[in-house]
Amino acid sequence: MSETTPALADRAAALDAADELGKLRERFTLPDGVVYLDGNSLGALPASVPGRLADVVAREWGELLIRSWDESGWWTAPERIGDRIAPLVGAAPGRVVVGDSTSVNLFKALVAAARLVPAGEGRDELLVDAATFPTDGYIAESAARMTGLRVVPVEPGALRAALGPRTAVALVNHVDYKSGRLHDLPGLTAAAHAAGALVVWDLCHSAGALPVGLDEHAVDLAVGCTYKYLNGGPGAPAYLYVNERHQADFDTPLPGWNSHAEPFAMTPGYVPAEGAVRGRVGTPDILSMLALEAALDVWDGVSVEAVRAKSLALTDFFLECVAAYVPAGAVEPVTPAAHAERGSQVSLRTENAAQVMRELIARGVIGDFRSPDVLRFGFTPLYVGFADAERAARTLGHIYE
Amino acid sequence: MSETTPALADRAAALDAADELGKLRERFTLPDGVVYLDGNSLGALPASVPGRLADVVAREWGELLIRSWDESGWWTAPERIGDRIAPLVGAAPGRVVVGDSTSVNLFKALVAAARLVPAGEGRDELLVDAATFPTDGYIAESAARMTGLRVVPVEPGALRAALGPRTAVALVNHVDYKSGRLHDLPGLTAAAHAAGALVVWDLCHSAGALPVGLDEHAVDLAVGCTYKYLNGGPGAPAYLYVNERHQADFDTPLPGWNSHAEPFAMTPGYVPAEGAVRGRVGTPDILSMLALEAALDVWDGVSVEAVRAKSLALTDFFLECVAAYVPAGAVEPVTPAAHAERGSQVSLRTENAAQVMRELIARGVIGDFRSPDVLRFGFTPLYVGFADAERAARTLGHIYE
Repeated sequence: MSETTPALADRAAALDAADELGKLRERFTLPDGVVYLDGNSLGALPASVPGRLADVVAREWGELLIRSWDESGWWTAPERIGDRIAPLVGAAPGRVVVGDSTSVNLFKALVAAARLVPAGEGRDELLVDAATFPTDGYIAESAARMTGLRVVPVEPGALRAALGPRTAVALVNHVDYKSGRLHDLPGLTAAAHAAGALVVWDLCHSAGALPVGLDEHAVDLAVGCTYKYLNGGPGAPAYLYVNERHQADFDTPLPGWNSHAEPFAMTPGYVPAEGAVRGRVGTPDILSMLALEAALDVWDGVSVEAVRAKSLALTDFFLECVAAYVPAGAVEPVTPAAHAERGSQVSLRTENAAQVMRELIARGVIGDFRSPDVLRFGFTPLYVGFADAERAARTLGHIYE
Repeated sequence: MSETTPALADRAAALDAADELGKLRERFTLPDGVVYLDGNSLGALPASVPGRLADVVAREWGELLIRSWDESGWWTAPERIGDRIAPLVGAAPGRVVVGDSTSVNLFKALVAAARLVPAGEGRDELLVDAATFPTDGYIAESAARMTGLRVVPVEPGALRAALGPRTAVALVNHVDYKSGRLHDLPGLTAAAHAAGALVVWDLCHSAGALPVGLDEHAVDLAVGCTYKYLNGGPGAPAYLYVNERHQADFDTPLPGWNSHAEPFAMTPGYVPAEGAVRGRVGTPDILSMLALEAALDVWDGVSVEAVRAKSLALTDFFLECVAAYVPAGAVEPVTPAAHAERGSQVSLRTENAAQVMRELIARGVIGDFRSPDVLRFGFTPLYVGFADAERAARTLGHIYE
């Protein structure tokens, strides 16, 4: 198969030369010689972060001390950064708030959703995507237990058929973490609404890689992390989206003082703030949060639509290179070929997947292994190019030779 | 009153010269010319933090990327840092875990406590310290609502009398955030146990300032923040303590994948890990967490008992200076005079408190104002000296002249 190498390498070079997003790689600090295809697990370091974080620590914390809660804008960071993320997921200002982990936000969203369901309609089912990232299922069980619902696991393909008069809430992953399958957010949201149910979307593997359109598609509630395609850093705070029509009735199970209408009045009775702020809980972790804010600078002047176009071109090209370089039958793509069903990753099923991934990493191609038999390659269009895709596939081919 | 100035200033200098903890101030970066008495709100910047955090960002995130979850010990940070905090609160290893905000940890603790109460005993009351920091009351209401309990607000002085056969759980602040009053943790814990109830202690205003003795006094559950006397940085992650005898039955309302016995098996069924790890939820915010870890270096070789002794000497001396410098009747101490009832802060009631605090801050003495009439001065023995206390009281006196 090596005869195809020059042709594909030349194609990659030409594609990179024509790539309008190619220059964005300069906004990141990546180690030399590495092809990083694990940005769907931990995004690369934006060049804007180290300097900003050093200033937050030395000046805002060290010199201004307590005054920074006002003077450095720490107090309003959760909603300010939420408004920075909002356009990336198709939300208007005031609908996204940042803080806590995805799991904690999912608990808020699911309990609040359960409480939005009118009593007396006999809706007692919480449908959960059976292929979901496990934490979603665990948190859904807890939310169901504490609100009187019953979790019903459903294969994503069977979700439409499972919706019915007993459905209270459906929880779906926009892109499956393992297979990379993209689910039909507009269609499933509309179907859930037609059945009288609410939908909570988990955007961890889609936000920052493709258009989401939360407002446009009337999504009820959504959560997502910021350390994958949003490059916020390890364990960076997650976010919660609350559709405007639910904000006044959003009844959180975690009514910390940061979500109070007058947090500094220190009154014994809880009065929730208006808007997405109601999703706040306790004091936000400012260092992680302001690192995330700096990381979002990489999006200046970038459209999610352009990112999506490059993402599909990259994953198409990677699949083409894999077909050319890897012996027939050695790997089987798990990620759908149809663009409408593909996120921004390619998962390949293979024997000895853990060992293959170790060898790839040893050769400078970083993806990840998902038990028991999946090689997962994430394509972040902001810093991954076509030559990276070609090299990754070629390296994989060498391992099978 | 100015004739006393030389005498008190001389006493302060002598006390500082004899202070064995005085040299610890070098472990912090404090702005010149400032007396910082707000470390009970946001601790000062430890000198060890900026360099460590820069390395975490540039090398561990930027170069090692995803590998740092293993190679840099990110994954085990919550329990490793918990074990660093444990001796400061009198806990053995494996009983403290770091992560999330205090409010979120309080929700875990209260729900878990409610679930530890045997059914059928008719215990339906959650007693809550009525003077509590508001978020504790709000979260208690939510935990009660979701576990079938009823919140009963109780003045701390009346807590013993309120304990009875209907008490399921009592939530108490170890040191009141506003008055600085220290509550009797050993005595109230024993009284609650004698009444068949569990106790959850909020250590936000005590940990790092005085001995707590969680294991010794058989406390059931406790939570605390790390950004006050533990100097972890703005919004640094909080911690949760679970007594060993409750760990096997600790049933969290937030069963995120990080608390799973085999988190990377990605199995659909939740099986909780053993030990304090069970209190973990989602992916920990590594930047804030590792800043906290570096901040804890200031405790190397320091005993909490020595810190407590200096704290009492500092607050005694400050009260003496206030009595000498401030016109009689202008301020009234709210913090108890008895050492057994005093935390590490002094609260003074006065007219126009907000304005007085603004003038103090303009003169380089940073405390804080608590609505409607309290000036609050926190004394962190690791970096506050007797000359600071004297200058703060003298400056306060000048404002009233």
